Amino acid sequence: MPQNLRRITLSDLARALGVEGAGDLSIAVVRAAHPAEAGPEDLAVAASPSYAEALKGGGARAALLWPGADWRALGLEAALFAPRPRYAMAALTQTFQHPPHAPEGVHPSAVVDPSASIGPGASIGPFVWIGPGARIGARARILAHASVGADARIGDDALLHAGVRVGERVRIGDRFIAQPNAVIGGDGFSFVTPEKGAVESARQTGAVAADALNTHHARIHSLGAVRIGDDVEIGAGSTVDRGTLTDTRIGSGTKIDNLVQIGHNVEIGENCLLCAQVGVAGSARIGDRAVLGGKVGVADHVRVGHDAVVAASSGVGSNVPPRAVVIGSPAIARDEWMRMMMAMRRLPRLIGRLGK
Amino acid sequence: MPQNLRRITLSDLARALGVEGAGDLSIAVVRAAHPAEAGPEDLAVAASPSYAEALKGGGARAALLWPGADWRALGLEAALFAPRPRYAMAALTQTFQHPPHAPEGVHPSAVVDPSASIGPGASIGPFVWIGPGARIGARARILAHASVGADARIGDDALLHAGVRVGERVRIGDRFIAQPNAVIGGDGFSFVTPEKGAVESARQTGAVAADALNTHHARIHSLGAVRIGDDVEIGAGSTVDRGTLTDTRIGSGTKIDNLVQIGHNVEIGENCLLCAQVGVAGSARIGDRAVLGGKVGVADHVRVGHDAVVAASSGVGSNVPPRAVVIGSPAIARDEWMRMMMAMRRLPRLIGRLGK
Amino acid sequence: MPQNLRRITLSDLARALGVEGAGDLSIAVVRAAHPAEAGPEDLAVAASPSYAEALKGGGARAALLWPGADWRALGLEAALFAPRPRYAMAALTQTFQHPPHAPEGVHPSAVVDPSASIGPGASIGPFVWIGPGARIGARARILAHASVGADARIGDDALLHAGVRVGERVRIGDRFIAQPNAVIGGDGFSFVTPEKGAVESARQTGAVAADALNTHHARIHSLGAVRIGDDVEIGAGSTVDRGTLTDTRIGSGTKIDNLVQIGHNVEIGENCLLCAQVGVAGSARIGDRAVLGGKVGVADHVRVGHDAVVAASSGVGSNVPPRAVVIGSPAIARDEWMRMMMAMRRLPRLIGRLGK
Repeated sequence: MPQNLRRITLSDLARALGVEGAGDLSIAVVRAAHPAEAGPEDLAVAASPSYAEALKGGGARAALLWPGADWRALGLEAALFAPRPRYAMAALTQTFQHPPHAPEGVHPSAVVDPSASIGPGASIGPFVWIGPGARIGARARILAHASVGADARIGDDALLHAGVRVGERVRIGDRFIAQPNAVIGGDGFSFVTPEKGAVESARQTGAVAADALNTHHARIHSLGAVRIGDDVEIGAGSTVDRGTLTDTRIGSGTKIDNLVQIGHNVEIGENCLLCAQVGVAGSARIGDRAVLGGKVGVADHVRVGHDAVVAASSGVGSNVPPRAVVIGSPAIARDEWMRMMMAMRRLPRLIGRLGK
Repeated sequence: MPQNLRRITLSDLARALGVEGAGDLSIAVVRAAHPAEAGPEDLAVAASPSYAEALKGGGARAALLWPGADWRALGLEAALFAPRPRYAMAALTQTFQHPPHAPEGVHPSAVVDPSASIGPGASIGPFVWIGPGARIGARARILAHASVGADARIGDDALLHAGVRVGERVRIGDRFIAQPNAVIGGDGFSFVTPEKGAVESARQTGAVAADALNTHHARIHSLGAVRIGDDVEIGAGSTVDRGTLTDTRIGSGTKIDNLVQIGHNVEIGENCLLCAQVGVAGSARIGDRAVLGGKVGVADHVRVGHDAVVAASSGVGSNVPPRAVVIGSPAIARDEWMRMMMAMRRLPRLIGRLGK
Repeated sequence: MPQNLRRITLSDLARALGVEGAGDLSIAVVRAAHPAEAGPEDLAVAASPSYAEALKGGGARAALLWPGADWRALGLEAALFAPRPRYAMAALTQTFQHPPHAPEGVHPSAVVDPSASIGPGASIGPFVWIGPGARIGARARILAHASVGADARIGDDALLHAGVRVGERVRIGDRFIAQPNAVIGGDGFSFVTPEKGAVESARQTGAVAADALNTHHARIHSLGAVRIGDDVEIGAGSTVDRGTLTDTRIGSGTKIDNLVQIGHNVEIGENCLLCAQVGVAGSARIGDRAVLGGKVGVADHVRVGHDAVVAASSGVGSNVPPRAVVIGSPAIARDEWMRMMMAMRRLPRLIGRLGK
């Protein structure tokens, strides 16, 4: 399978990664590989002793190893050592990454509105549509079938993968990455009944009153857009809705995984991590550096504090303090949850003993 | 940023919204805005006293206020008063909405099969594909990259956002809205093992029998399509599967949020609300005006009654009576769930007292 | 509504399905239909006695019936009998399926890179993009707006529905089906902090230490691709991420429903069923023939054994043994979960009796 191979000596690589080397650092490698799949031109990546067996079975001459590993005993001719191997992976995979096929210029099949502006060095792929008044920054790579709505603005060095939808008037900073079929700027889900409706009734009284049936929904239109900072990444198939009066906001450095839903008016801080299938309901606010595990749901208008960590599959129904670690549905402090879970597992025996 | 500004006097606006005005109603506004972001030409929207501070900090001369607010004390020159401010938002946002860029006519890059019919006044955007025999109603707006399969039918005044997929033979009523990348009419997920399989075994006996392994899956094809009533909206990235023999059905007035999954043969009544990331499994039936909160799952063949409300993150495994309010996984009546949750939080102390 | 009608006698149909017939088997039918909707040219499908009323109300002359049904008493002129009616549905719906509109050849609007190769008999639809070096097998049907990235390989008889994204270097076997807007080969969600971050801190100590804040995330790029076996189906809007060093893998015969997320480095065995909105986090391993119910989450690095069944909405946080049936969040053995649930429902009364 053709690949763009970059040959680099271990000494150059050690310098690029800022790590120490040992053995024959004149060996050149073309790829980073799993220890079991690595050949003589590959750098095997073995970040912990659990990979020792795979290393011996593979064909690598050199490896990135865990601190203290005996590289000679592992049958290697050279090794790189990183104090934090996982962090070294960032620079290592950047060195050997496969940038997507994105030749500079506008593909003949693309349609760019005459009033749009495209920065220097950009690549506009097949069947891309750029709407009137849109502004795309320098060196942007917009892959096949992506669309950018009227008056949207995207900063420099963006990478929009195939099928990404950027809605009208959305504003995005520099170095933005959107994975395939992500949607930025759909309308918010906001409807209102003329009189008190079923949900209001259920919240206030715990029951749906006979005079509070949802016989009609009036649509509240989204006048706002979406505003996204620098260095943000949004995963495949994820959706970010526009705000009602103001913009939905995502802060710089925040990374969002696949199939995540961000509702209207939500504000997400900087450097957050939102794992796959998270859902954040309308007007919720997520502080800086918060981490939401996979499938976490956050109810509307709730606040999650700075540096909070919400465990996977949790349902956050009330505010989470800064730096708290919460879990469960409804989410509570992790320590209390663990005591509760342990108690629950003992419960059947207890009830058996006490009778019903 | 260019916007289509519509200048309207407060007296005209009061009439359009059906609300009362006070102060200088000859003031004209061009936008509805958050109190903190509103300038002298904006109508600030302050639906409750919690916005009072923001109002004072902003630059609005006029605002839509909560009932009884002292508009002069808030530094305003005029005010509109709505008995139910949230309901007034529907007409207000309609007045100031930004309709998407959708010039009448067929974009030169679009491909419309010669046997398809397009209603008068429709807008067919860049790279849109309309298949053979498809019929699109009057004034439809079909934005970039959307596709409409063979023999599909879409009523008048539809709005399909970018990348929407309408499958073959799907039938949709009037005033339909689909947000970007929604999929109507994928095949149902329906497979069968030649002999009793793992799931049947687990359901019947609680264990997977050694002779009930899923060694082969035969595909049950979807012969049906999807039938959707009038005034339905479907969110970004949501998916609605076709039925096996008959059509999957969504009733008039029902609104569906982003990343929602509707399985094959499902019947959803009228005027329901399905919030983001809801999943409704095959052959389930949802009554009229039911509300499913975010991330709710409904098991296959289950019935949810008219006007029922299912709280966010719940898993509905058995039928829900009309007008019931249920919560939890498995979902139970809200009152019982609250007693259970309170008991559970006391449980660790109780067990500590009683010993294990 | 035009449909491709295939007229077949009941005797031929009985032979095709491998089932027994009774009555006038010279009757020809053109469609399989729900009993209530069936007309005189349709074969009504009534797999259980629960359909008897619908049958009597419909207009069918013939039906596929449950074993032992009295077809004459149901007003029919002929009947087919299947020992396992649901299994007969596979052949029956294949007989009457509606293949999508996909004429052989390359649509004039499609863009196929000159270095790509397309197998004989393939159909390449409107606005399809096939990247450099890609190889598409014989008789593939690639519908409107799908894209296949550089150097990807897809086997024979594939069916890619509208808007499917196949990323660069992805390798897929024969008879692959992808529903609309599915994404194969987005980048993995993998970021690392220079020093120990919030999640590591929370896992180790249960709290986020003041010196473990996620102030910066370095991106780990995905060097791997996705490798998919034969006879795999992937649902609408589902996303499968590439691996970091090696490929994410999906085994032959595995079927994946809509809006499912498969993380980087995940290995899924053969003949698995993953229902809608399942999420499998990075590096998890799912054994052969496992069944994950709707909305199941599987944590990173966890192993689910062969033939295991995970009930809908469960959260799998630790390894699941082969053939186990688990449920809950965190998922535990079904028997233990049922005892726990029963105990919990008794708990409020127990606590009331014991006092707090």
